[in-house]
Amino acid sequence: MDLNSDVGESFGPWPMGDDAAMLEHVTSANIACGFHAGDPSGIARTARAAVAAGAAIGAHVGYRDLAGFGRRFVDCSETELADDVAYQIGALQALARREDGEVRYVKPHGALYNAIVSHEAHARAVVDAVRSVDPRLALVLLPGSVAGRYAERAGLRVVGEAFADRAYTPEGELVSRRAPGAVLQDPAAVAGRMVRFAETGLVDAIDGTALRVDAETICLHGDTPGAVAMAAAVRAALDDAGVEIRSFA
Amino acid sequence: MDLNSDVGESFGPWPMGDDAAMLEHVTSANIACGFHAGDPSGIARTARAAVAAGAAIGAHVGYRDLAGFGRRFVDCSETELADDVAYQIGALQALARREDGEVRYVKPHGALYNAIVSHEAHARAVVDAVRSVDPRLALVLLPGSVAGRYAERAGLRVVGEAFADRAYTPEGELVSRRAPGAVLQDPAAVAGRMVRFAETGLVDAIDGTALRVDAETICLHGDTPGAVAMAAAVRAALDDAGVEIRSFA
Amino acid sequence: MDLNSDVGESFGPWPMGDDAAMLEHVTSANIACGFHAGDPSGIARTARAAVAAGAAIGAHVGYRDLAGFGRRFVDCSETELADDVAYQIGALQALARREDGEVRYVKPHGALYNAIVSHEAHARAVVDAVRSVDPRLALVLLPGSVAGRYAERAGLRVVGEAFADRAYTPEGELVSRRAPGAVLQDPAAVAGRMVRFAETGLVDAIDGTALRVDAETICLHGDTPGAVAMAAAVRAALDDAGVEIRSFA
Amino acid sequence: MDLNSDVGESFGPWPMGDDAAMLEHVTSANIACGFHAGDPSGIARTARAAVAAGAAIGAHVGYRDLAGFGRRFVDCSETELADDVAYQIGALQALARREDGEVRYVKPHGALYNAIVSHEAHARAVVDAVRSVDPRLALVLLPGSVAGRYAERAGLRVVGEAFADRAYTPEGELVSRRAPGAVLQDPAAVAGRMVRFAETGLVDAIDGTALRVDAETICLHGDTPGAVAMAAAVRAALDDAGVEIRSFA
Repeated sequence: MDLNSDVGESFGPWPMGDDAAMLEHVTSANIACGFHAGDPSGIARTARAAVAAGAAIGAHVGYRDLAGFGRRFVDCSETELADDVAYQIGALQALARREDGEVRYVKPHGALYNAIVSHEAHARAVVDAVRSVDPRLALVLLPGSVAGRYAERAGLRVVGEAFADRAYTPEGELVSRRAPGAVLQDPAAVAGRMVRFAETGLVDAIDGTALRVDAETICLHGDTPGAVAMAAAVRAALDDAGVEIRSFA
Repeated sequence: MDLNSDVGESFGPWPMGDDAAMLEHVTSANIACGFHAGDPSGIARTARAAVAAGAAIGAHVGYRDLAGFGRRFVDCSETELADDVAYQIGALQALARREDGEVRYVKPHGALYNAIVSHEAHARAVVDAVRSVDPRLALVLLPGSVAGRYAERAGLRVVGEAFADRAYTPEGELVSRRAPGAVLQDPAAVAGRMVRFAETGLVDAIDGTALRVDAETICLHGDTPGAVAMAAAVRAALDDAGVEIRSFA
Repeated sequence: MDLNSDVGESFGPWPMGDDAAMLEHVTSANIACGFHAGDPSGIARTARAAVAAGAAIGAHVGYRDLAGFGRRFVDCSETELADDVAYQIGALQALARREDGEVRYVKPHGALYNAIVSHEAHARAVVDAVRSVDPRLALVLLPGSVAGRYAERAGLRVVGEAFADRAYTPEGELVSRRAPGAVLQDPAAVAGRMVRFAETGLVDAIDGTALRVDAETICLHGDTPGAVAMAAAVRAALDDAGVEIRSFA
Repeated sequence: MDLNSDVGESFGPWPMGDDAAMLEHVTSANIACGFHAGDPSGIARTARAAVAAGAAIGAHVGYRDLAGFGRRFVDCSETELADDVAYQIGALQALARREDGEVRYVKPHGALYNAIVSHEAHARAVVDAVRSVDPRLALVLLPGSVAGRYAERAGLRVVGEAFADRAYTPEGELVSRRAPGAVLQDPAAVAGRMVRFAETGLVDAIDGTALRVDAETICLHGDTPGAVAMAAAVRAALDDAGVEIRSFA
């Protein structure tokens, strides 16, 4: 099992999250690429830290919307989005190379991650960008997304993702953040949930039914209060249970 | 002899220059990378056109200053600048690869080009960025610059540049754009001047003395009125004189 | 009858349209405010030109999306949008004052203009911003929009707008730009159409039925080839027909 | 005596400082205007908090350099800078008005603050912008600056500023941040120093000589660790000493 987290989301004078602490617990580092967050020097520092920690580097690409942190859908054209994504991947590749690292995968961020579950043009754009820049890059996605279907057809490796601290509907979708119970807060409970998932592939949906989640990596959020404690708890519980934690890449 | 021009300097809805026409005449295409000009889709289109025209692709990197078009010195730190330059090169590499092209060289733009003639920290930053991203990339510079000295020491290939339409001081510097006679307007005169330069390495300085310019490439400006006619005249005159025009890369 | 045009849409080194020529023909100048186009010095120059030409100054506010020129819907929150719009109006007010002018009205741009025909939260945001910054500002809108209803309830003056060169559906909506015949090209035909509209309030819909358009101002596009000729033709025809052309403000 | 602090320097998802806590202690709120920091919704929230706290609102204007937080000199033209400053003031005026507040003064930020101590063109630009937007606005500056001289000649009210936690040279300049002892860390010592200054106009320079500082306002930094404790200590000590703390505006 792989653990991933969003890192490198500082910008200029503004820090975000505790990347150093998160990188002690995760095996995959989703590094912001400058469009939703991340200035070049912050990206470089994060790439260096990921290399030092032995975490695989992924390009965390988003809509061009710094003020909105990539959390707002932007109705761009398929071509614009594909070029924006390729640009971001390439920028990170150079900075990673500068730190003796290498980009291994791409994970869309925020509104883009959510959009390509169903938005066909934007899903095509992301797949097309990844394929054209480097077809060996894996693509981390919500299981069952339209983007995943396109990516597989294009010959890309698709890596399904589970969310440690998010509630699921019985249909396998994430419960909307606005609904009660959408975000799980208790580190012990989340850790136990992820051990079960790692051992059986199952998580309890919000109504209590057992749900199969087709995922090779678990997302640990890094920018919430208690994020590091949560990550540490999940990692320790998986280690204690004898689950092998290593990058999918 | 190589001919180069700045291209890809549109942004969003705003066009600049006639890239298609310029690419008929030059052998090296300095493509903007998004910091002083160039949005990803415009960059991609220009890379495609350069590939189609057989021009070598160069990264035209600048200060992070879109509103100022990279023409204003920005007093950033050496680290910030090195990472900014690496970011830009990488972004162009990905978009070039997407269009089956490859970045062969780096040419700093505007205020950055001028600064690194003498600004040591910024010169080091540019050289460091190029070397760390890909040491096979050449660096196009004003002959005699501090950056050129650093680049040679770092093992980079340095390519000196002459300006077709700019007057030189007897010391080999460009006459300030604000001075009378700084920019040459007559295509026939400029073409003749460049034929002489290609054959002898000499240009007349503004006071009439013969000046040796240590350059392998001639810059043809693309964003001025009459730019295409000037480029066509220079190219035709060099062809007629039997000067071989091909990329230095 | 009032004639309006979008002006001030240059950015940094990139010009757009021929503002000086358009300002000879229109009585209302929709000046970009920096979010979709317009840098402060370009905005100031345009405000100066509008004051000199005697045109009323309006704030042409848009989504925060320079690369997309405000033509892409951005799914921002109601609060974000209201504050973004207020910011833009204020910025233009200061630059207009600097040139001895005054902002008289607000006209949303591009995707925002279209969104608030039906998007309730974004319509409320625009109305709220205008009302809070200066309730004497008029709001120029497509007739029949949700934003118009909210604006009237809020006590704002709403000014309906007709489009000189756009085809209408029989229901009074604009024919999509992607459909054939959506944009009218012939200056004489457009001029005749606008004279009829000014005299009777009627335009022919795309199927030939007579359509009543509830508008006090006619939009003349400034950024298309032939824009100035079109504007001149419409203005001359209206003058010849004895239609009084003056600002609604 | 007035106490001022920089607030509203968050951007998008990135917070900075504890504005609410600082506003309990200061009487003047320097609110970022979007060019070095501050998105419209963050600016509006801060204006609301300043109004609620009874603090006077000032426009904290900077170079157009978000990634560099306005701490890097940008070699823009006098016209560009004047228009950039006017734009920022106007934007804040609208957002302040929206929250039933009013902009009372302008304080340049970071590299701009430092530049106009001696840079004549940039000093003229700031003065010209303030005067043209609203000549009743005061201008907060380092005592003895070129900008102050120009501002007085232009009829603007100039308010000198002292820095609570910065060491001074015997000549009255700030000791460079890079020099040892440049930033004072001990709240009690800083508080005592400011009581003495408020009562006598004197501070000890770094060599121990008594220095007269011609200032009506004391700057309390808000974005450093311990900033709130420092501000509270200074305010409490001034209150205890019977110094009247109120806005200069």
